[in-house]
Amino acid sequence: MSEAKDLSRRNFLRKASLVSGGALMTSSQLWANENIPNTPPNVPSWMRKTGKTVGAAPYGVPSLHESDIVRKTVPWLTASPISSVSFSPLHALKGIITPSSLHFERHHSGVPDVSPDEHRLMIHGLCDNPLVFDMDDLARFPSVTEIRFIECPANGGMEWRGPQMEALQFTHGMLSCSEWTGVRLSTLLAEVGVKKAAKWILAEGADGAAMGRSIPIEKALDDVIVAYAQNGEMIRPEQGYPIRLVNPGWEGNTSVKWLRRIELGDKPWHLREETSKYTDVMPDGSARQFTWVQEANSVITSICPENPLKNRGFHEVEGVAWSGRGKIKHVDVSFDGGISWQRASLKGLILDKALTRFSFNWNWDGSPKLMQSRAMDETGYVQPTLEQLRAVRGLNSIYHKNSIQTWQLSHTGEVKNAQRS
Amino acid sequence: MSEAKDLSRRNFLRKASLVSGGALMTSSQLWANENIPNTPPNVPSWMRKTGKTVGAAPYGVPSLHESDIVRKTVPWLTASPISSVSFSPLHALKGIITPSSLHFERHHSGVPDVSPDEHRLMIHGLCDNPLVFDMDDLARFPSVTEIRFIECPANGGMEWRGPQMEALQFTHGMLSCSEWTGVRLSTLLAEVGVKKAAKWILAEGADGAAMGRSIPIEKALDDVIVAYAQNGEMIRPEQGYPIRLVNPGWEGNTSVKWLRRIELGDKPWHLREETSKYTDVMPDGSARQFTWVQEANSVITSICPENPLKNRGFHEVEGVAWSGRGKIKHVDVSFDGGISWQRASLKGLILDKALTRFSFNWNWDGSPKLMQSRAMDETGYVQPTLEQLRAVRGLNSIYHKNSIQTWQLSHTGEVKNAQRS
Repeated sequence: MSEAKDLSRRNFLRKASLVSGGALMTSSQLWANENIPNTPPNVPSWMRKTGKTVGAAPYGVPSLHESDIVRKTVPWLTASPISSVSFSPLHALKGIITPSSLHFERHHSGVPDVSPDEHRLMIHGLCDNPLVFDMDDLARFPSVTEIRFIECPANGGMEWRGPQMEALQFTHGMLSCSEWTGVRLSTLLAEVGVKKAAKWILAEGADGAAMGRSIPIEKALDDVIVAYAQNGEMIRPEQGYPIRLVNPGWEGNTSVKWLRRIELGDKPWHLREETSKYTDVMPDGSARQFTWVQEANSVITSICPENPLKNRGFHEVEGVAWSGRGKIKHVDVSFDGGISWQRASLKGLILDKALTRFSFNWNWDGSPKLMQSRAMDETGYVQPTLEQLRAVRGLNSIYHKNSIQTWQLSHTGEVKNAQRS
Repeated sequence: MSEAKDLSRRNFLRKASLVSGGALMTSSQLWANENIPNTPPNVPSWMRKTGKTVGAAPYGVPSLHESDIVRKTVPWLTASPISSVSFSPLHALKGIITPSSLHFERHHSGVPDVSPDEHRLMIHGLCDNPLVFDMDDLARFPSVTEIRFIECPANGGMEWRGPQMEALQFTHGMLSCSEWTGVRLSTLLAEVGVKKAAKWILAEGADGAAMGRSIPIEKALDDVIVAYAQNGEMIRPEQGYPIRLVNPGWEGNTSVKWLRRIELGDKPWHLREETSKYTDVMPDGSARQFTWVQEANSVITSICPENPLKNRGFHEVEGVAWSGRGKIKHVDVSFDGGISWQRASLKGLILDKALTRFSFNWNWDGSPKLMQSRAMDETGYVQPTLEQLRAVRGLNSIYHKNSIQTWQLSHTGEVKNAQRS
């Protein structure tokens, strides 16, 4: 029998069988609240006085009641906190824009304090006219604005051998999505005049690691942006202030932060971060290099370890899907660990290489469930199970684990990170 | 002769005649920078050390170099700072998303400190089943996410008699645009069961002013959202935490913040904010009531008093356009105070009742200009001149001044707020 109920537009909550938590008040109860001072029809205490002055916060911050919604680190994950990760709180985020304050971090030598007045971008190598741009120069070029996700290829990489992290923030939180504004790299490359011999670029950051990656010229001339703004304002220090590459759909580390140098060359540079790191070690011990694309992926976010269910009855099963190859075409959800699937709806904007929200209206009967989501992108690629991925990749990998996530919902409403064939 | 040049994709800056400011360095100069320590090919000082630890800022903030990009107030504008305005720095913003920290403010009794655990939304009046919702109840309903602008109808209202404010931030900064997530009001109204006699709703906020507005039932059942999230995270205190109405395209004050009560009635309430305030006083002294829609408007943001030109040559003339009636259809720009017009291009997302970016590639020859933009929306409405608006509205109005803005560019590159027939 289908899990999907024919939900009318009315009575979403009144159909619910409340097992715990808040109780919706109906008319008979409305006027019995006189002993609860801040509840209607009473006038709450905060209406009985004037509030904080307009302009008291020239640059606003969240409510103190939301102080637990922050980026978090996992101390044991890396040897040093200057080369580590902080995770976005995906369980608490809505829509497709990640607040810049909550964008995940992955740095290789911490966050440098770059002076925008002194910072320069040099483009040189196999070009007619090498140039050095200051930030004012870059601001004068025609700009583009695009919403794109950035994901670390190590996202989920702790779980090749099975569930380990008991929070969505840590299983999938190396993922964020922003509105980026800047100059197309192709515009700057046209300015310097790319020689025919140039087949690759090197992008290098101005951090202590001189974090660098080789990128094929075809991608460099396609949709890459030299970005200076994120979600309307100048890029934050942790996201590459004053400029970074945004390399849509590819491993996050190729979107080089604090960008200082682009060199045009005829072959890749084989840097540390594309040889000893960011390669996929296969079952036979060989390493697949230059596996840049973040393949289609998805996860349920409204029901997860941080968001247990308090009530039976109606729930919107919501989550995010994304693909480095283009748009999400559809997302299916399963409540029985992948035995049967039902089509979710996509809601809001469905953009190229951006987070996409999916939604499925559902009535929980209180029984245990194995909840999954499965994304398909516009190329026809279908998100694999962990077993399908292991069959190809084995157990030696860290990167590019985009397999289907299973959340185990117990009869109490608790949710655990689980594995299901 | 057209101001538009046939700009090739190359040589945007090399065509420029530099009159001041930074100089683009070419190959012959590249290797002469050895005395400038932080300039390529030298390795800058911030690459010679490790940076700030990953996770040092669990909730990130902008670079200290951007500390002047804040909401600003105009002390003489209102009698009290608890019932006043702070303005968004439009001159420094990119794309269409306004960072929540920089969303303009207009409060009538300051910002209340509302407890989300104790806050309730009551819906009552002409309905079958009045209900009180807590914040968990609202989170369980199916949600929608939409990018919408919010604008105070007093935006620009200081300038009916001519230019007064010497900054874009103050001429147009009561305008912001966010990705809002919440429950459609129509979903909640279906839950309580609207009686046929109900023709209006009252929306009331939980601030000290009990800020309230009457809204016709047709609009309430259309695209209004009871929003709890903004740009991915929970709404900020200044924008109505924990919930507000988002009433797309209508006067900002109808998007009632700190929403606590919705009453269904058979006529409007004629509250203070729809009688003595937020009406349009016509030339004959009568007051037009319930002029809710923010009509099509636009302004050039890349060249404005805060953004003078430092160089002749290529510049992207960029700005924002918006309409409370739907999508922007096109924007024209003029360099001669409205005598001749040229079509700008729209870039990025073109969404219903959202900011839309326009762009025009231009070469400045160094001569004085009167720069204007003119929006047309999908209904065919064309943004009027100030004279056209005055011919209907006279000089008694404060609200709904959406006339064409003129920026006077002098030969030095300075930009002033100007008036032009």
